[in-house]
Amino acid sequence: MDEQTTKGHEVTCLKADLICVGDEILNGLIENTNAGFLSRRLWSQGIVVRETAVVADERDSIGDALERGLEKSEIVIITGGLGPTDDDLTREALSSVLDLPLVLDDCWLQEIKHFFSQRGIEMPDNNRKQAMLIKGSKLLPNPAGTAPGALLEHNGRLIIMLPGPPNELKAIYDQSVKPYLKEYNRGSVFKLKTLKCAGIGESMLEEKIKAIGEWDLPPLSFVARGLEVHLQLKGQGDPAEAAETIERAEEKLRGALGDYIYGSDDETLAGTVAELMQKNRATLALAESCSGGLLSSMITDVPGSSVFYLGGLVTYTEKAKAKLLGIDEKLLKKEGAVSEKVTRQMAEKARSSLGTTFGLAITGIAGPESDASGKPVGLVYIAAVNDNGSSCKELNLGGGRLTIKERASQVALNMLRKMLLSTPPDLQSS
Amino acid sequence: MDEQTTKGHEVTCLKADLICVGDEILNGLIENTNAGFLSRRLWSQGIVVRETAVVADERDSIGDALERGLEKSEIVIITGGLGPTDDDLTREALSSVLDLPLVLDDCWLQEIKHFFSQRGIEMPDNNRKQAMLIKGSKLLPNPAGTAPGALLEHNGRLIIMLPGPPNELKAIYDQSVKPYLKEYNRGSVFKLKTLKCAGIGESMLEEKIKAIGEWDLPPLSFVARGLEVHLQLKGQGDPAEAAETIERAEEKLRGALGDYIYGSDDETLAGTVAELMQKNRATLALAESCSGGLLSSMITDVPGSSVFYLGGLVTYTEKAKAKLLGIDEKLLKKEGAVSEKVTRQMAEKARSSLGTTFGLAITGIAGPESDASGKPVGLVYIAAVNDNGSSCKELNLGGGRLTIKERASQVALNMLRKMLLSTPPDLQSS
Repeated sequence: MDEQTTKGHEVTCLKADLICVGDEILNGLIENTNAGFLSRRLWSQGIVVRETAVVADERDSIGDALERGLEKSEIVIITGGLGPTDDDLTREALSSVLDLPLVLDDCWLQEIKHFFSQRGIEMPDNNRKQAMLIKGSKLLPNPAGTAPGALLEHNGRLIIMLPGPPNELKAIYDQSVKPYLKEYNRGSVFKLKTLKCAGIGESMLEEKIKAIGEWDLPPLSFVARGLEVHLQLKGQGDPAEAAETIERAEEKLRGALGDYIYGSDDETLAGTVAELMQKNRATLALAESCSGGLLSSMITDVPGSSVFYLGGLVTYTEKAKAKLLGIDEKLLKKEGAVSEKVTRQMAEKARSSLGTTFGLAITGIAGPESDASGKPVGLVYIAAVNDNGSSCKELNLGGGRLTIKERASQVALNMLRKMLLSTPPDLQSS
Repeated sequence: MDEQTTKGHEVTCLKADLICVGDEILNGLIENTNAGFLSRRLWSQGIVVRETAVVADERDSIGDALERGLEKSEIVIITGGLGPTDDDLTREALSSVLDLPLVLDDCWLQEIKHFFSQRGIEMPDNNRKQAMLIKGSKLLPNPAGTAPGALLEHNGRLIIMLPGPPNELKAIYDQSVKPYLKEYNRGSVFKLKTLKCAGIGESMLEEKIKAIGEWDLPPLSFVARGLEVHLQLKGQGDPAEAAETIERAEEKLRGALGDYIYGSDDETLAGTVAELMQKNRATLALAESCSGGLLSSMITDVPGSSVFYLGGLVTYTEKAKAKLLGIDEKLLKKEGAVSEKVTRQMAEKARSSLGTTFGLAITGIAGPESDASGKPVGLVYIAAVNDNGSSCKELNLGGGRLTIKERASQVALNMLRKMLLSTPPDLQSS
């Protein structure tokens, strides 16, 4: 379906072509996560991605894709091929297609030299290449590496170059490209909002949405991500109309789904939990076994998490459970490490060792083999404890080792979220 | 560089274009994992992926990409757009570009009806569309859904259609496409091997490779992944020739790069460390601060890691450092939590608390804000300790919070790897 013509009246909507350069993507050495990131960012700013192409580190392939993109879309974003080595050819291909020379940006050359000298290394000669820019383009500083981004308005087209490493690309996009596009794209309105759900499966979610009845709004897209389901709402028209469409859809969905919706857009389950923890002035200690530190890592991905997350223990073996947490060795022998009683005790011990509001613990068999007990791979216990007592959940998770680690951590976060939502108001304001 | 002409003599090498159809990929709601899967499968069968395109659910966009693919490559694989709904247009676009009619496959229609009746539902009328095939094509049964794949040899080109859901696509590929391509591509042999390096930057690595001198082998591709660099070696020709090319390239690279190479292909740094730990019958305890559990999670991603990794502590706050690890509070006050002395003590306390061969600790400022000490974001200390004493590294890492967590964990793993490699042989065999 053509996004631009789904409504009766004309909508001005900028189109973008993405060109991702790199043999390593074409031969499957790395996944092309940049395309997904850029697509989500562009759509959220009202820019439709017309086509994404992945091309080889070859001048002609880059050039062909570039010519195609410039012909069909107002914006072309090229990622990758901006490194210091001989097979980094994006600059050269662009220079040749646009018939514009490459010029040295002396300031950035100094930045590169500084980058190396800070690390006690002299700049290798080939890095000089990274300070070469297409004439007339604006340099976009790279806070995380030596390849800068660049942006060029040329013959009514906007061309944006970004380095391939995802962390560098993301940093440059958010710091420089996003504000630039906000100005550039004043006229067009196309809005996208993602509502994120946890604790409900895709089928049950669909039934709840069907139960809403009449749906006179743009169709919804769903996608399951691990144990979460994400729902995408679209609005278009003039700014007020687009916003109103999304608002109406969101209201209907929130009515039907309630607390299953934990957040929207860039929010994460861990981020939502972090916000609730701070709002409740609560603190947390963890004890992880089969999740092996992943839950802790998900929580510490949230900036400022040290305000509420005091610390955790990865008691990966029985020895660690006994020595670090002081779990009763008789209980360990009798019930086995993967058991409701041990998990509850782990949550309690973690909580008491740091004097926190909440203690949260995970045990389980992540596989590929079971432990000495012979309990099935995928069996997981999650316990949460606070002043009101403790609760424990038994799960049977499918998928491999990494999936089990991830899903167990997601369920633990959602369990904590639900406890925080049910915390009495007087405790919340204390 | 054209893959087909890198060698002096002619090598027949089939090229493939991938076309992934779907608005949900273009707007970033789902990641395009099909492209990576197909790329890896094709390359492993000696077929080079020339270009991957992601296009919208629009007849013209699909048609344009198809014409381009048929012009440039011997094989075109189209994924997605084979569902039962009105915006599934792949069949129609193909029929129009090839000027071939769609015909009903009665056998598959019965399969679809059976699929629904098994679930106690009558087949919705629009699913009939999924039994329509381009005239002359061979149906590829779908063991997991109602959209079959199809395969058509036409004017010297091979066109393969596969449904978009990854589990269905993978099942059809492995069951029907792979054996077909094996016959189809008898002539060509093309092999790939990836060598993975740690502890060396991309530029310095390139200089070391240049110092090898004459390089009469296929050009190398590099990719930086965090603090690792991956090198891809290619061999082509007949099977023996391809294998020999890779062997010679690997030998030269191992001579030049030595222990910077930690592994190959699917091996990970954590996996290599796990192997060395087990070979040395060594055990490990961790104390993490700024990496927040990520290092522990990377280690526990490796199956069987509980053999050597006894447990760890995520001492995310000063309170946790004092209470859980027993770090000297005076030292914490005097030196600050992010300091060499505290980090060494953390490694020692982690080691002694579980009686392990190695203790490994990370502290640092992951940002976005500094701590009370005002030390710079990105300052990280990593300490490792064993019977021979302790060593400590000071790093200044760039990038955001997540990058700092990841890189600190990578450096810690590599530090442990180097200590394990230098362990005296008598200890190794004990």
